[in-house]
Amino acid sequence: MVNELVQQGMTAVERKLESVVASDIQLLEDASLHIVTSGGKRVRPRVVLLAYLAAGGQDLDSVVPVAAAVEMVHTATLVHDDINDHSLTRRGKVTVHARWGRTFALLTGDYLFTKVYELMAPYGVEPNVMIATACTRLVEGETLQAAAAKSGEMDRETYKQIISLKTASLFEASAILGAWLAGADEKVIQALGDYAYNLGLTFQIVDDILDIIGDPEAMGKPVGLDLTQGRGVLSVAQNGGKNEEDGLTAVAELEEPDPIQQMMAGLRASGAVEIAKMQAQETAVRARKALEFVPDTPARDELFGLIEAVLNRDH
Amino acid sequence: MVNELVQQGMTAVERKLESVVASDIQLLEDASLHIVTSGGKRVRPRVVLLAYLAAGGQDLDSVVPVAAAVEMVHTATLVHDDINDHSLTRRGKVTVHARWGRTFALLTGDYLFTKVYELMAPYGVEPNVMIATACTRLVEGETLQAAAAKSGEMDRETYKQIISLKTASLFEASAILGAWLAGADEKVIQALGDYAYNLGLTFQIVDDILDIIGDPEAMGKPVGLDLTQGRGVLSVAQNGGKNEEDGLTAVAELEEPDPIQQMMAGLRASGAVEIAKMQAQETAVRARKALEFVPDTPARDELFGLIEAVLNRDH
Repeated sequence: MVNELVQQGMTAVERKLESVVASDIQLLEDASLHIVTSGGKRVRPRVVLLAYLAAGGQDLDSVVPVAAAVEMVHTATLVHDDINDHSLTRRGKVTVHARWGRTFALLTGDYLFTKVYELMAPYGVEPNVMIATACTRLVEGETLQAAAAKSGEMDRETYKQIISLKTASLFEASAILGAWLAGADEKVIQALGDYAYNLGLTFQIVDDILDIIGDPEAMGKPVGLDLTQGRGVLSVAQNGGKNEEDGLTAVAELEEPDPIQQMMAGLRASGAVEIAKMQAQETAVRARKALEFVPDTPARDELFGLIEAVLNRDH
Repeated sequence: MVNELVQQGMTAVERKLESVVASDIQLLEDASLHIVTSGGKRVRPRVVLLAYLAAGGQDLDSVVPVAAAVEMVHTATLVHDDINDHSLTRRGKVTVHARWGRTFALLTGDYLFTKVYELMAPYGVEPNVMIATACTRLVEGETLQAAAAKSGEMDRETYKQIISLKTASLFEASAILGAWLAGADEKVIQALGDYAYNLGLTFQIVDDILDIIGDPEAMGKPVGLDLTQGRGVLSVAQNGGKNEEDGLTAVAELEEPDPIQQMMAGLRASGAVEIAKMQAQETAVRARKALEFVPDTPARDELFGLIEAVLNRDH
């Protein structure tokens, strides 16, 4: 029943994502639809809908634009990330950057950001403050990541800060928005926010693990990319020091495929992936614990299930 | 008196622009402050403040964040424009792109966009809808411009559509926001919107003229840039046809300075600049006419003065 309701809501989110990017400027609409209809796991909008239901919300349609907005924030940053990473494929399709070129990819990302405004504007003050804060943190996290990769000063503490800012904050905002719009009390809002924050950390750690051990076919994008950029699980292999100390930097800076393959094999052998998996288990435990403060409903069961889905995904 | 009030308001806008970009991520704050404190003509925030006063608003401080927000929209697009244009200088300073590189410039622009949200969120539904719409149009205008420059299909009609979307819409929104927040009636809001829309067209046409005949020293940036990108007054010299028809395209695609100089000399000689100047006079007349529907106050006098300042500026 809840499952069916959420499925209908997610279909409505897809329709909203497609309709909101309509534009007289055909190129902008085409490039936006290209990325918006390319699938994606849609975890963030699902968190909005489930948090809304778990917090007692009765009119799921009323939060569909919010669910679309958080996915749109994520989508906009993907388009801009692909410029900075020179990525050619994403979700098994050519990137906006590769197909339309840098100028139009940059503008398409900006356009998608303006659509976040458009989707959120009707919700008034508090929800807009929440999404603005999450967006700021996301960009701060991306910047910290780029700066750390460039300077080679990526350690566990920095990695934690990066994934908190760039991923967990938007997950947290997704749940808080859903719960707040359901009119939940402060304790439940907080619990759902904690849940989603830790779900976001879990999601990102697993994402970084898949960059090392994932199957490129299943992923729909090349693996090892984060590694070449000095990001991700790389940092997990380090004991709080700088890259220089364990000689990983030099490899991260290389562009040829062979050293990257060696690096990935080295990381797999070093135990870094195992450590990262343990960290993901740890954040998953925190996500489960947070749900104890949420009323026991079928929607809460779905939120529990989402933790397992995020932990066990292979792409 | 009004002049002094507006001056105080503009100083408050500067402080707001500087304080809102504060971040724990030092690079983001540094790059943001670099562009935010680099001067700029601040026409848009001035329009917000003057429209607010002309519409009878009594608490100028209450619209300072809105004035900062419209300038922030403009500033964010400048940072992204400079990436796409490979610009090295802006307002007499090195660009964010040139100093921090493309990745950080892209993220800085995104960061400034998130600060627009933050500034606007407290104003509730209507103002956020207004700014969201203006932002969407702005990005549509930039995209249309880039597409027209690329395809060489820049004619007067397209040029008009571009400057309407990319410049006049944000000017219009600035005035409407100011007037709406002052609680003005619909007729006055509409008149101030019409005024600012035409002021924006005037501003952009003059900007494009200065790209051809301006003094690089006074401008703080190279001239002829729009020309090399197939934009701006170039289109005015054309009679509704494509670039190919009058042989201008080939020149626009060249990168060496000499052909550009020749092109600029050719445009100056062709009368295109004179036609553009007449168009600016025409839109200025429309801006003046719109003010007839606004109560006669010292703030309205300032709005009249702004038209002359925009028309007669040399940088």
